[in-house]
Amino acid sequence: MSAAGGRRSRPPAGGAKAWHGRLAGRTAPGLEAYSHSLDQDLQYWREDLAGSRAHARMLRTIGILSPAELLSIEQGLTRIAAELEASRFPFVTGDEDIHMAVERRLVELAGAAGAKLHTARSRNDQVALDLRLFTRRAQVDLVAGIAEVQQVLVRRSREHRQALLPGYTHLQRAQPTTLAHHLLAHVEMLQRDCDRLLDAHRRTDASPLGAGALAGSSLPIDRDQVARALGFTQIAANSLDAVADRDFALETLFACVLVAQHGSRLAEEMVIWASAEFGFVDLPDAWATGSSLMPQKKNPDVFELLRARAGRVLGDLVAACTILKALPLAYNRDLQEATPPLLDGVRVTAAGLAMLSAVMAAIRFDTERMAEAALDPQLLATDVAEHLVRKGVPFREAHTIVGRAVRAALRRGVTLADLEPSTWQRIHPAAGADVLQLFDARGALRRRELPGGPGPRTVGRALQRAELLIRRNRRQVELLRARLP
Amino acid sequence: MSAAGGRRSRPPAGGAKAWHGRLAGRTAPGLEAYSHSLDQDLQYWREDLAGSRAHARMLRTIGILSPAELLSIEQGLTRIAAELEASRFPFVTGDEDIHMAVERRLVELAGAAGAKLHTARSRNDQVALDLRLFTRRAQVDLVAGIAEVQQVLVRRSREHRQALLPGYTHLQRAQPTTLAHHLLAHVEMLQRDCDRLLDAHRRTDASPLGAGALAGSSLPIDRDQVARALGFTQIAANSLDAVADRDFALETLFACVLVAQHGSRLAEEMVIWASAEFGFVDLPDAWATGSSLMPQKKNPDVFELLRARAGRVLGDLVAACTILKALPLAYNRDLQEATPPLLDGVRVTAAGLAMLSAVMAAIRFDTERMAEAALDPQLLATDVAEHLVRKGVPFREAHTIVGRAVRAALRRGVTLADLEPSTWQRIHPAAGADVLQLFDARGALRRRELPGGPGPRTVGRALQRAELLIRRNRRQVELLRARLP
Amino acid sequence: MSAAGGRRSRPPAGGAKAWHGRLAGRTAPGLEAYSHSLDQDLQYWREDLAGSRAHARMLRTIGILSPAELLSIEQGLTRIAAELEASRFPFVTGDEDIHMAVERRLVELAGAAGAKLHTARSRNDQVALDLRLFTRRAQVDLVAGIAEVQQVLVRRSREHRQALLPGYTHLQRAQPTTLAHHLLAHVEMLQRDCDRLLDAHRRTDASPLGAGALAGSSLPIDRDQVARALGFTQIAANSLDAVADRDFALETLFACVLVAQHGSRLAEEMVIWASAEFGFVDLPDAWATGSSLMPQKKNPDVFELLRARAGRVLGDLVAACTILKALPLAYNRDLQEATPPLLDGVRVTAAGLAMLSAVMAAIRFDTERMAEAALDPQLLATDVAEHLVRKGVPFREAHTIVGRAVRAALRRGVTLADLEPSTWQRIHPAAGADVLQLFDARGALRRRELPGGPGPRTVGRALQRAELLIRRNRRQVELLRARLP
Amino acid sequence: MSAAGGRRSRPPAGGAKAWHGRLAGRTAPGLEAYSHSLDQDLQYWREDLAGSRAHARMLRTIGILSPAELLSIEQGLTRIAAELEASRFPFVTGDEDIHMAVERRLVELAGAAGAKLHTARSRNDQVALDLRLFTRRAQVDLVAGIAEVQQVLVRRSREHRQALLPGYTHLQRAQPTTLAHHLLAHVEMLQRDCDRLLDAHRRTDASPLGAGALAGSSLPIDRDQVARALGFTQIAANSLDAVADRDFALETLFACVLVAQHGSRLAEEMVIWASAEFGFVDLPDAWATGSSLMPQKKNPDVFELLRARAGRVLGDLVAACTILKALPLAYNRDLQEATPPLLDGVRVTAAGLAMLSAVMAAIRFDTERMAEAALDPQLLATDVAEHLVRKGVPFREAHTIVGRAVRAALRRGVTLADLEPSTWQRIHPAAGADVLQLFDARGALRRRELPGGPGPRTVGRALQRAELLIRRNRRQVELLRARLP
Repeated sequence: MSAAGGRRSRPPAGGAKAWHGRLAGRTAPGLEAYSHSLDQDLQYWREDLAGSRAHARMLRTIGILSPAELLSIEQGLTRIAAELEASRFPFVTGDEDIHMAVERRLVELAGAAGAKLHTARSRNDQVALDLRLFTRRAQVDLVAGIAEVQQVLVRRSREHRQALLPGYTHLQRAQPTTLAHHLLAHVEMLQRDCDRLLDAHRRTDASPLGAGALAGSSLPIDRDQVARALGFTQIAANSLDAVADRDFALETLFACVLVAQHGSRLAEEMVIWASAEFGFVDLPDAWATGSSLMPQKKNPDVFELLRARAGRVLGDLVAACTILKALPLAYNRDLQEATPPLLDGVRVTAAGLAMLSAVMAAIRFDTERMAEAALDPQLLATDVAEHLVRKGVPFREAHTIVGRAVRAALRRGVTLADLEPSTWQRIHPAAGADVLQLFDARGALRRRELPGGPGPRTVGRALQRAELLIRRNRRQVELLRARLP
Repeated sequence: MSAAGGRRSRPPAGGAKAWHGRLAGRTAPGLEAYSHSLDQDLQYWREDLAGSRAHARMLRTIGILSPAELLSIEQGLTRIAAELEASRFPFVTGDEDIHMAVERRLVELAGAAGAKLHTARSRNDQVALDLRLFTRRAQVDLVAGIAEVQQVLVRRSREHRQALLPGYTHLQRAQPTTLAHHLLAHVEMLQRDCDRLLDAHRRTDASPLGAGALAGSSLPIDRDQVARALGFTQIAANSLDAVADRDFALETLFACVLVAQHGSRLAEEMVIWASAEFGFVDLPDAWATGSSLMPQKKNPDVFELLRARAGRVLGDLVAACTILKALPLAYNRDLQEATPPLLDGVRVTAAGLAMLSAVMAAIRFDTERMAEAALDPQLLATDVAEHLVRKGVPFREAHTIVGRAVRAALRRGVTLADLEPSTWQRIHPAAGADVLQLFDARGALRRRELPGGPGPRTVGRALQRAELLIRRNRRQVELLRARLP
Repeated sequence: MSAAGGRRSRPPAGGAKAWHGRLAGRTAPGLEAYSHSLDQDLQYWREDLAGSRAHARMLRTIGILSPAELLSIEQGLTRIAAELEASRFPFVTGDEDIHMAVERRLVELAGAAGAKLHTARSRNDQVALDLRLFTRRAQVDLVAGIAEVQQVLVRRSREHRQALLPGYTHLQRAQPTTLAHHLLAHVEMLQRDCDRLLDAHRRTDASPLGAGALAGSSLPIDRDQVARALGFTQIAANSLDAVADRDFALETLFACVLVAQHGSRLAEEMVIWASAEFGFVDLPDAWATGSSLMPQKKNPDVFELLRARAGRVLGDLVAACTILKALPLAYNRDLQEATPPLLDGVRVTAAGLAMLSAVMAAIRFDTERMAEAALDPQLLATDVAEHLVRKGVPFREAHTIVGRAVRAALRRGVTLADLEPSTWQRIHPAAGADVLQLFDARGALRRRELPGGPGPRTVGRALQRAELLIRRNRRQVELLRARLP
Repeated sequence: MSAAGGRRSRPPAGGAKAWHGRLAGRTAPGLEAYSHSLDQDLQYWREDLAGSRAHARMLRTIGILSPAELLSIEQGLTRIAAELEASRFPFVTGDEDIHMAVERRLVELAGAAGAKLHTARSRNDQVALDLRLFTRRAQVDLVAGIAEVQQVLVRRSREHRQALLPGYTHLQRAQPTTLAHHLLAHVEMLQRDCDRLLDAHRRTDASPLGAGALAGSSLPIDRDQVARALGFTQIAANSLDAVADRDFALETLFACVLVAQHGSRLAEEMVIWASAEFGFVDLPDAWATGSSLMPQKKNPDVFELLRARAGRVLGDLVAACTILKALPLAYNRDLQEATPPLLDGVRVTAAGLAMLSAVMAAIRFDTERMAEAALDPQLLATDVAEHLVRKGVPFREAHTIVGRAVRAALRRGVTLADLEPSTWQRIHPAAGADVLQLFDARGALRRRELPGGPGPRTVGRALQRAELLIRRNRRQVELLRARLP
């Protein structure tokens, strides 16, 4: 109890606000309902308790808490954790957020010791701490989820290293490539997402606790101790910024936008490939959806949802950015409203990654249909032009020549491969019978062993590179997870 | 039972999908979780049941259902409504959306009759119907909510018809106005919101039912009967469009964006006015929020939340618009993802309106502080210039002259009203002692009885106009509510 | 002239600011560059001059201008119009916007009369007027552009009334429809866009002039005269709102977003249909684009651009909405920044409509490829199920039965139409030889003469309806154009 | 010349398209106008020429070009650079983009050698290269611009190290801080922006050239040589990804969104501080703006523009993200439309930074008004509570006690500092006469020498840290600029 003598600490009665000294009467019920944030807070109660635990230990170190008080706080927090875990926490009307609900409950459980926990702390720095802890975990989990998708794509690439695929530009057949080369493009896109998330993590990794409402505290708190206890490598360098900043949330949301966007690009391809007209992929029945009306339907809904959710995450980013715009320092309640988009964006993105891993592992590639399309001789028109270049024809001229040949073939209703040597000769003296041997999609790939290209040996090296990246991503996940409280 | 003879209709077992004939095995659990929409659907189960009831009656009219079958469907739907109302509806795994859950339950309750309900209907037109019914109700409720805010603002305006207020541009004091004139500006903004919602309602008011999956039905259904039963005045004119269209949702969301934006503008003013420096308003304790750390604080959080939520609704609109972009006809599962933004945007906007009514009714205006600021003689500089115009000085010259006087006064540390007649005379012969009588804010208002201006009589007329608008809005609400099923 | 006697009106020297009386020295050059809006203003100089002309005449009516002064102002404005038209207007440093540039030039041309033009007017109400005039014109032009696209789509529909097309959901073939029915769905979408633009026009149609900076004027101006002269049917009802409002711009931008989105949906279809795999459309060479590298390519770039620009217009809307959020009344300079998105969104949307008319008129439909796809017997599975319904089988059971038949056919590598009557009989006694006659796509259409459906007679009526709508849209365009100044 | 013998290379005639062999006739003029990108391309013609030069040298290395051909290409490119620099480049109709315009001109200048430049290159990889070079430069310039703003803020902080300022939360006075501490919060925010831009730079730093249309080339090109020549440290690892990726643009745009958002937060503060009611800052006349109507006005337009442009950049990001969503690989023309938002966002952000440096250097702080506000005794309520904590009162109890004292003081119309020791004693035995000495804002700051706090010595260290960061930013700028071609 208090050194202030026999006077009894009277914590506010159940439901009264922490500031009942200053503001008379009860909060208007409409305002309670409108402003409470408990639903969202429940997604990071673990972080809130971890922060309180570290804060309490620091208060013990500097002598604000006695050993007995610390013990009773820690026991109280342990009990609260169990209650929250089991969804049995006794919320009361007036618990407007997780911070005040926990403090109220702690006072019930630990008496005056509980009433000391908020010493030298404000909800402003407390919520900033909770969100940074939550965001650190989310970033790490997202990297793990991406690595999983990458692993599936690499496995499917290995299965289909030889599978020919038409490369498209403008959704028009362009040049032959392979399914492996195509899937590895998606692996590269996802790798940038990992890197972005890890960069965002570096900037999230700074403890705001100790910033108080905005100006720290007049008590001799130790910000470094708290930071270390929670696995932060640094503390936020300016107390005003520490409570006013949500860059880490916006940056993480943006990283989610790109993850979701990359997912949407793959999803769009799968929707198109699953059409009767393309027929490049087929979903196992367990991964497809039927129609309530049309008995024959088998729909790739999962990819449509993945595609659509890229829009949802973008909406989340816009909401958060618009909310932050033009806010004066330091804390404003608007900041509370930047949290739901963060939570939603992270959740939707993580779920999308899990779905992508599962469905890309399950999908069947119809490599015969792909190969059939890839063997279209038109896809080798560029090879003919480059063949002419090797014979000294300036490229632009070679391009025009082959363009004319294409037109001629179309007019005659034949493919480029059907034109006779004599026709080629007429078109250009440099083009002769040797042109015909170019119409071989596999040969075209072997001619493309340049770095990054679709040549079989190059793709083999790309697979090794991809596996290396995945291992590195996973190692990062392990290291950063170990530091989470 | 069926004319097909003794053969028993076997509805799918609990949890099996409607399309279990076509797709073998169970849906992957991950896909179930990822794609289900029950959470959102529960916000419009009433609409779904109303639609099913109307559809069933039409099926009876055209002879698909016998009277007994209709009766058993209606009894089943009534029971389901009671179960949903009491949150006792027995959902099972595999109930992926409200439509399939209701049908499954109906088959349990009503047997083969239930298995006939989906005749000539697809979830594509069914969900479009549900959303249109939901949206019609939402539009009407929003208009009612706006009328409520308008009413409060008009009441406060009447209370403070005489209250002087500095009008601001660039947050700099500009010219005198009154609190009533200022609040009525917000009434006008909200009136446009009502009009927009009512326009959107007209475009929502078209029944999609009967469009089926996209091509209607080969059965002789009566779309008009269903439309009438549900209070629609027209039917969607093209079946492909009927299932692919979400314009009504986007348009309603956009109307919400503007409502929320208007709220944010008023909220921003109240935040600024509540600062110690302005001191124009004061919140009753029940409507203010304290600080967990700083004992003296009394914060206008409610306005900060209102301000922020304009960002949230904009995020909803962006999500929905991005999702709809570049979708080929007709139905794609992406459309499901446009629904959560609609539900969220409508809910957040409606809650904001309720809050605005309540807090604007409760807020205290410190009309003395306002008047003190409004009496700043600088605010009458324009009146001096216009006074010179009346004496024949070209306005641009008059403006320059008065600008110089302002500068002179500032240099001497006095106000414009403190300059002596002789100084004015030196500045311009047309300016003399009569300038001094201009420094009277109330006189300035009386000089501004032009239409739309802050003159007392004009504001009196504006109050009457506002009350007329409110009555008209409420009449619309009544008429449209009467048509809702 | 002035009662102030011989004293000469000295308008500010070329380049000095209108407020040079109040603020000493020159504006910092950096600020000039950062804040000037001339580039954007030049898109509505005609509106600015029309407004000035109407304002001047009103000033004459109330005696502020003499007949001679009005004449010299009108002559000056005519000369300025000619200079701007010919891009020969002599801008000088310090002309920060069109309003001040015109006034400066007018003073050069018309002397002291010019210095009287700004009497009882502020740039706040002036720019609001210019933008409303610009927006009214833009709305009308957009409706005209939409009617043009509708006309092209109707013409193409008439050409291809019989052309079978598979209707798709989830990009999977669903049920047979016709190209005409499909194109008419787009006509309906565009019709809503027209209606929205016309609704927005009604709310744009209120003259802000006379609102001054925010509080009108102490001079006896006649707002109605100005409004009538500029073809407005009403005046803005509150002077604070009149200068602070940009709803009309946002609403028009939103209407553009939906126009562009509808364009993007059609464009996406054309990109997919132009693929080698679908092959439903072919662009004339003049409307296609080749590749700089691949000689064989013929790309539908025009549709990709149309698709992408829906994103651009959405970006414009977000910019404008974010800018307006949380702005206190009345005018703030932020409002200037809402103008470029409006101008850009309108321009991009109008250009897209023109392009859509042209390319949809030029595109070739390969109705044979379409028909081939539409004749896939699977598309008639629903008809089989509805056939069973007619025989008394509950729909859900019929759906399951046909689903099993589809699965059986797939297993045997045949189509649904290849199953023998005996197989059908085994599947369900109600299904017999008569099932086979259902596999006729044209018959399926004839069975769908319900309102809004793809039946030939119904589509005929839909074409008539579409033509009626187009005529109505064009009549509106004429009426509203006649009112533009 | 060509080994193909006497045959003359005939480059396409002026205005003909590169693909005139394949597509007959002229491109439709409407399509030319709609699809051309020259306006935007002109912002990176230097990058395009640098890329062509590096590509040509590589073609020489691998023997495609003879020394003479390389020489004539280099001379041609030099001439073209001069023409573009002087805005004298002879564009012709049909020059749809900078790449084709340059090639056409080069063929005019260098004959057949020019027609060889596009060998083994596509516009797909070429434009990706140009944009990456442009983006690298933009990132570096933005970091330089940020360092400039930081420098100004540090200088102003040093000038006002002692200046008291009320710290605000919810725009309510919270606790005393100093202007220096406040400005340094902005320095921290900007530092994160630098870091983000440098991270984005690392991901931009990969050369796409050699990816061709999507599958590289069958010619033996050397991607590494080109990359080194252009200052890239790596090459894009997958050719499909290399042409389909715009992550670097989106990430840079997002970094701009946060820069602009940080600017908007500072701007909002300055707008509020410049109000008559706050009076904390005053703009020199050269940096303020007057009114066209109200002679007394002096407006902080520059900050309103800065505030608004945060919305514009967000709109740019939304446009680009929406455009990229759901694009299948590899190149689609939609990508062209992602470029204008990038160019606009970078330009607007850079201009905003320049403006911020200038105006924050010029602004005058009224440190007396600030101090007067900061001396409000209520701001020390927390210090009283923490004082009681030091005496053993649990914080929550102390908070309530002081809250009651605040209420009591308000009721009596006095400040907290006016309560007598006896009153304090009555409120709580631990509070006595020693409370009175707490009401000293400077003392409150000295009590806050915790890391990140507003204590004078701590702020001194923060200033040193800030200068270190600025030096580091500038060193990075130098290093990266040196690598730009």
